[in-house]
Amino acid sequence: MTNNSANKMWGGRFNSSPAEMMLEINQSISFDKKLYKQDIRASIAHAKMLASTKIISGEESAQIVAGLNQIEKEISDGKFIFKKELEDIHMNIESRLKEIIGDVSGKLHTARSRNDQVATDFRLFIRDEIDAIKFLLIDLEKNFVKKSEENLDVIMPGFTHMQVAQPILFSHHLLAYFEMFKRDISRLDDLRARMNECPLGACAMAGTSFPIDRNFTALALGFDRPTSNSMDSTSDRDFAIEFLSCTSLIALHLSRFAEEIVIWMSKGFEFISLSDAFTSGSSIMPQKKNPDAAELIRAKSGRIFGALFALLTVIKGLPLTYSKDMQEDKEVVFDASANIRLALAAMSGMVLDMKVKKEKMLAMARTGYATATDLADWLVKNLQIPFRDAHHITGNIVKMAEEKNLELHELTISDLQKIEKNISEKIFTVLSVENSTSSKTSFGGTSQENVKNQITIAKNFLDNL
Amino acid sequence: MTNNSANKMWGGRFNSSPAEMMLEINQSISFDKKLYKQDIRASIAHAKMLASTKIISGEESAQIVAGLNQIEKEISDGKFIFKKELEDIHMNIESRLKEIIGDVSGKLHTARSRNDQVATDFRLFIRDEIDAIKFLLIDLEKNFVKKSEENLDVIMPGFTHMQVAQPILFSHHLLAYFEMFKRDISRLDDLRARMNECPLGACAMAGTSFPIDRNFTALALGFDRPTSNSMDSTSDRDFAIEFLSCTSLIALHLSRFAEEIVIWMSKGFEFISLSDAFTSGSSIMPQKKNPDAAELIRAKSGRIFGALFALLTVIKGLPLTYSKDMQEDKEVVFDASANIRLALAAMSGMVLDMKVKKEKMLAMARTGYATATDLADWLVKNLQIPFRDAHHITGNIVKMAEEKNLELHELTISDLQKIEKNISEKIFTVLSVENSTSSKTSFGGTSQENVKNQITIAKNFLDNL
Amino acid sequence: MTNNSANKMWGGRFNSSPAEMMLEINQSISFDKKLYKQDIRASIAHAKMLASTKIISGEESAQIVAGLNQIEKEISDGKFIFKKELEDIHMNIESRLKEIIGDVSGKLHTARSRNDQVATDFRLFIRDEIDAIKFLLIDLEKNFVKKSEENLDVIMPGFTHMQVAQPILFSHHLLAYFEMFKRDISRLDDLRARMNECPLGACAMAGTSFPIDRNFTALALGFDRPTSNSMDSTSDRDFAIEFLSCTSLIALHLSRFAEEIVIWMSKGFEFISLSDAFTSGSSIMPQKKNPDAAELIRAKSGRIFGALFALLTVIKGLPLTYSKDMQEDKEVVFDASANIRLALAAMSGMVLDMKVKKEKMLAMARTGYATATDLADWLVKNLQIPFRDAHHITGNIVKMAEEKNLELHELTISDLQKIEKNISEKIFTVLSVENSTSSKTSFGGTSQENVKNQITIAKNFLDNL
Amino acid sequence: MTNNSANKMWGGRFNSSPAEMMLEINQSISFDKKLYKQDIRASIAHAKMLASTKIISGEESAQIVAGLNQIEKEISDGKFIFKKELEDIHMNIESRLKEIIGDVSGKLHTARSRNDQVATDFRLFIRDEIDAIKFLLIDLEKNFVKKSEENLDVIMPGFTHMQVAQPILFSHHLLAYFEMFKRDISRLDDLRARMNECPLGACAMAGTSFPIDRNFTALALGFDRPTSNSMDSTSDRDFAIEFLSCTSLIALHLSRFAEEIVIWMSKGFEFISLSDAFTSGSSIMPQKKNPDAAELIRAKSGRIFGALFALLTVIKGLPLTYSKDMQEDKEVVFDASANIRLALAAMSGMVLDMKVKKEKMLAMARTGYATATDLADWLVKNLQIPFRDAHHITGNIVKMAEEKNLELHELTISDLQKIEKNISEKIFTVLSVENSTSSKTSFGGTSQENVKNQITIAKNFLDNL
Repeated sequence: MTNNSANKMWGGRFNSSPAEMMLEINQSISFDKKLYKQDIRASIAHAKMLASTKIISGEESAQIVAGLNQIEKEISDGKFIFKKELEDIHMNIESRLKEIIGDVSGKLHTARSRNDQVATDFRLFIRDEIDAIKFLLIDLEKNFVKKSEENLDVIMPGFTHMQVAQPILFSHHLLAYFEMFKRDISRLDDLRARMNECPLGACAMAGTSFPIDRNFTALALGFDRPTSNSMDSTSDRDFAIEFLSCTSLIALHLSRFAEEIVIWMSKGFEFISLSDAFTSGSSIMPQKKNPDAAELIRAKSGRIFGALFALLTVIKGLPLTYSKDMQEDKEVVFDASANIRLALAAMSGMVLDMKVKKEKMLAMARTGYATATDLADWLVKNLQIPFRDAHHITGNIVKMAEEKNLELHELTISDLQKIEKNISEKIFTVLSVENSTSSKTSFGGTSQENVKNQITIAKNFLDNL
Repeated sequence: MTNNSANKMWGGRFNSSPAEMMLEINQSISFDKKLYKQDIRASIAHAKMLASTKIISGEESAQIVAGLNQIEKEISDGKFIFKKELEDIHMNIESRLKEIIGDVSGKLHTARSRNDQVATDFRLFIRDEIDAIKFLLIDLEKNFVKKSEENLDVIMPGFTHMQVAQPILFSHHLLAYFEMFKRDISRLDDLRARMNECPLGACAMAGTSFPIDRNFTALALGFDRPTSNSMDSTSDRDFAIEFLSCTSLIALHLSRFAEEIVIWMSKGFEFISLSDAFTSGSSIMPQKKNPDAAELIRAKSGRIFGALFALLTVIKGLPLTYSKDMQEDKEVVFDASANIRLALAAMSGMVLDMKVKKEKMLAMARTGYATATDLADWLVKNLQIPFRDAHHITGNIVKMAEEKNLELHELTISDLQKIEKNISEKIFTVLSVENSTSSKTSFGGTSQENVKNQITIAKNFLDNL
Repeated sequence: MTNNSANKMWGGRFNSSPAEMMLEINQSISFDKKLYKQDIRASIAHAKMLASTKIISGEESAQIVAGLNQIEKEISDGKFIFKKELEDIHMNIESRLKEIIGDVSGKLHTARSRNDQVATDFRLFIRDEIDAIKFLLIDLEKNFVKKSEENLDVIMPGFTHMQVAQPILFSHHLLAYFEMFKRDISRLDDLRARMNECPLGACAMAGTSFPIDRNFTALALGFDRPTSNSMDSTSDRDFAIEFLSCTSLIALHLSRFAEEIVIWMSKGFEFISLSDAFTSGSSIMPQKKNPDAAELIRAKSGRIFGALFALLTVIKGLPLTYSKDMQEDKEVVFDASANIRLALAAMSGMVLDMKVKKEKMLAMARTGYATATDLADWLVKNLQIPFRDAHHITGNIVKMAEEKNLELHELTISDLQKIEKNISEKIFTVLSVENSTSSKTSFGGTSQENVKNQITIAKNFLDNL
Repeated sequence: MTNNSANKMWGGRFNSSPAEMMLEINQSISFDKKLYKQDIRASIAHAKMLASTKIISGEESAQIVAGLNQIEKEISDGKFIFKKELEDIHMNIESRLKEIIGDVSGKLHTARSRNDQVATDFRLFIRDEIDAIKFLLIDLEKNFVKKSEENLDVIMPGFTHMQVAQPILFSHHLLAYFEMFKRDISRLDDLRARMNECPLGACAMAGTSFPIDRNFTALALGFDRPTSNSMDSTSDRDFAIEFLSCTSLIALHLSRFAEEIVIWMSKGFEFISLSDAFTSGSSIMPQKKNPDAAELIRAKSGRIFGALFALLTVIKGLPLTYSKDMQEDKEVVFDASANIRLALAAMSGMVLDMKVKKEKMLAMARTGYATATDLADWLVKNLQIPFRDAHHITGNIVKMAEEKNLELHELTISDLQKIEKNISEKIFTVLSVENSTSSKTSFGGTSQENVKNQITIAKNFLDNL
């Protein structure tokens, strides 16, 4: 490409004028308009506080509030005209407020600045997102529990290294994910409690000499208390980073189950099927069911980890207090939050939609000598053989079975006694996958009884949220 | 370089035999020996539980415990010989145990597997690291408080965009960091509570048919309870990732203060000095004080973020339950933890060591019309001028001062009245940096009174930990 | 927030139907419509190739090409209606083509699939972006050279650890950045050459039995050749990752100069000024110039590193060939590319806009005993004192100067001779910052002569691009 | 844990003295001793240059060189005592040199500084690593080619979305990886050429007034030329970051094949087997083969991506020139390089070791209507049916086959003619997987003939390296 043609293609835009370029890089209204509800809500609380502390009159406050309510409606109705030259959501609203209520609008900005204003808006936004994500997590958890309850009789192979290891209940496998997402809920709860402090009133960075009441605004906005240090209030973005850490772990858990769905849908496993709602076919191979939704959920992890890393990098090494670098905090959070919500909703739908192919699971659970451990444990318990020796004997039995191309329960008692003469017929009770799973009664183990208990506990947990 | 010489240089090692290569990539003893205390502690708890549940005899248990205690001493004394061919810390200890106590050692591995064993050891290790890091954070916090208390009369410029914005107390600036590290402590507390569950007894992944008592081992190891799902127990690494998230935020906060130290030490600022203990000089420029420690602390953030992303990547998309990929969890945690501890200790020392150059700070605080906001607020409060108009008038006054090359308090009353005739002499009371800071009495603001209160609160917080 | 209100707020969207949710997560048209030009261009090349190989008739090909041209115009004119239910740009265009030209449109998809189609489109897009970024890099380089040439007489302090180290030419400092961005150009050139191969004709993944001519399409689309392996062709995203690596390094270089601008604009340095076009003020402090553009450029590095990490994570561990995960490749590339272009354009404008405060730079260059090294070198050269001893003597002289509160050139000859009796008056010639810089004539050093040569070389380089 | 016990555990170390803490954080000798060969090599070149330019005498130079050679031997023999208080490798060697040859050693540091010295050492080190990694890549490529050649008759299912898509040659699949690693070699070549410039002689940052000959040292050390700008020379770490980008892509490619190995080894696929050298078993399930090496290779990607992001973060926003932050560049490079070498060597061994289970692959290739595309193409070519219509007809045929539970080639001609009456017996020739693969003769397609050609090209490429 010649420079000339490049110039024609895109140069026009940037080479026109520095002012235009600066407008483009500097503005945030193209994305921070997403905060309009939060911004108006915070401004209304601020106006009311200014009146309650007599910094402005009750009438002035009422005018401001009315103007702000009108603006919210205009934006909701799509009638508000956002202007890039007004740079951000705060100035767009303030400018419109002046048009509507005149000079009294100038009093709204008493004892605040954009620095504490944006910090407040962004906390309100993230708090809302936490609530929405928690709702979706609960929905997902309910579906895991529902699916576990419906499939209590399904035995599948448990894997380590993707190798068949021990038979387990399919419900037990699902409940492992219940634990992961339960921790995610707990992390979000901790974050919400920690970040629920109100920076409004920190002003530019030093506080103010106006007799404001920061408790008033904090409580009006549902915060537990005002923040303690005005400089930290305007330069802190911990809450956004911790939010991205929490969403990263959610994305990680989703990626693991998504990977399992992709594997279970493959020709080699065929453990489950999904309806057309969550798969894509091809006009030419109508039987084909590509697990597109699962793959996309798996991939979302990349995007969300990327957002976390982006924000850590942005804040790294920034001196106090506000720097314009911080404007880069919003888009990554918006994107990560929208995507984790989409991924959670899609996964929740898939869990519900998933049809289990019980026989396929059972058949594979019966291969690979998955009950070898049960055999060894029987030797320890019944013949008082030390664990390591029992392992050795079991290894020899497995080797024999392999040579004969038989599963363990297909060996005869005399086969077994050739290797360990004290083995009795009773051993066969532990060699079936059904007995294997039902014997794992240690707390947290895969026995049906345990799993049922865990389902009860899970339901109680969900009911009490 | 020819392939031939490359071959001579390093090829020899790898081309010798696949077995050797596999040994090298597969082994973890070179790093997981760091877990020896935790591994032995967990084995002792397990042995005692096996006896208490009569799975093994009391005598057998005692023999095992004695053997393990001897091994711990051998390792502490540097007399233990670690063997790569025994792969990991568990097998190294088990093998030595057999040498010491013979066949009864084989009973220790009843009703457990390396999968739950390593999960337990690693949780114990991280719990210890959390405690150590919390201790260092508290130490750092104490030094911030001490320094704040000693320098309550120091006024410095508060910056936004690295531009002089408003005068603030140096102590207020330090206490902003107190808030950050206080949140870090809170995050570690939350993590510790969340991860303090014991996976021991989950065995390979399905639980066991032995009548083990998981509450026994959990309590013996200081855990609050056993984990609820055996599959999750062996495949979960949330606690390690959340630990790296917490250390990343600590590193981020350290990087910000480190950056400020580097700037404050520069010729352009000269706000502080550090003793030779935390700087490096040069034989040729003995007056030079390079803030090496601060720079290194700033840089550690990269390493620790890198560890977080490494582990997120490793676990992404792993199907249940244990995969060997998880062996990559340890080195990143070891490295991040050692480095955050070193960085915290060094920063703590630097905060204490730091000498404040009060006059330099004050001089810059008096430049840049840093009290312009105070002037505007005076107009609002005393002349009832709306905020936005007061800003406009102030802007004109600043412009005049700039043209005259004067600071605000150097203007005459008649100068001021040329721009706004109602301004009275009283305005001069708000134009000094001392009055400016003392007027910021809003909660969280920089007034001395406020800062003193925050110091009291901080001390109470630290005393009650 | 109660779950109920959460539900009202956003639940409506997702809970409606799985199909809707799948549509939302699965569709890419909301972002891949950006590829419409590339998609149409590739389809036209494909249609012409099908005719040239007689797979379709010339007339059919002409109809298809005409239809595609019409669609391009419809999209450019904003008249095209994109439909989410058609999922992506390929199906949107194909569907419209059928409306325009009827059944013959069905022949366009002979011997290709969406897998090779999207790989081709995306390569074309990234190639265009490489060209555009290179153009901007060249523009930036020209401005660095211009600024260097205009300020050849400006001496500033060279820093290590942000401490004054040695006097250097400001132009020399700027040319250090010229070197960085020159490497960036070189990296883009290498990438462009490496990725300039055409995947079209790889079809779904196995190739085709139609007698297609892949050289025809490759050349028609400006590629150097077709790709060699059909499976790699559809599963490879190296070019996108390498593109993000290249943009990450550009962003890194920009972040370093942006940091310097922020520091140079601070009250402590005041080395440069920027016009209002690149700074933001405040209504209340009209003299204030916040370096917003520089801060935003510095912050863009986070976003771009995040994009790189996102894509590495997405592709990690994906089996061959196409997986839907790969759909996540586009948005990160689009975002990183748009932002690096914006950052480059803004930086280019700032370099040009920057006004140098020569006296401020010079004044600081004269502090900090920045010519101590020159003194030591004089001792080595004129008194044959070994380097390490010369360092020691110089250290003593600096200490004396510090105690007397003088700069080196302010010491008397008898002062100097007290420390080393053989020092002569001639030493004063090396103690000025002017002589110091002009003496650094080693290749790559900061002497004016050297810098002039480097400017000539730089200009030749730029002229020959 | 109480603070007290924490204190006992580790506090002792740090609380003892600031000096000790600083020594610990500041020192680099614990890791940069790895650069000793490079450091000595560069010092020898420097000493010879100093003599050739008469800055020191030939005799002095010879003494220095002899001393340095002795030191290299001492280190190689493990007899050298590294001292933390001497901080880094440069000072350790310089100090020892003085012990050996006395004061003349002081002349070695004429016209250089640690800043250009470490930049030179590190470039030499990375250049060596590039060469070593390239050697391993070539070895891996040879094994891919060898394996492809040996298995030319093996047909396997080609996957998209892990679903069976089309039959392909196993060799074709392997050669897709050949392409990836070939690009990796190309990237390393580009990096090597770009970074092969010598920073020695840039001195602290400004160059020198000594009449040094930078071409002399550059050529003596195998560099193509000296670097052009002394400030860039000491502050540039592009070469290290680009090295980590290159290794990240290698790790990414390895992770993909490792994932495939894990899947292929699973009970659901059983496409390959690996010998004990690359798998781990269990004493109890001796038949079990856990693909540990593949899993570890897959996981190494995390560590290497982490290293890349660590270094990007470290350098982000650093002003010129040297800052101590840069000391954090080494450990991440050392670790990433050692691990990518280990992973490459292990993968190379695995490729060679891998045994193909031909029948398993073939059996799955025959399922899933993998030749549906071939059927559609036959309709297009023989019945002149437009592509999209042919797809529709094929879809109906597949549906019929599915209902009858038959594969496509098991349908009768009258079955087929029920759906499209013009289909003739000839269609059966394209329905076998053998004919399907052999028909894909388009360039890059999977036909045996094509694959053979690609093998020939690959061998030529490898022979000409």
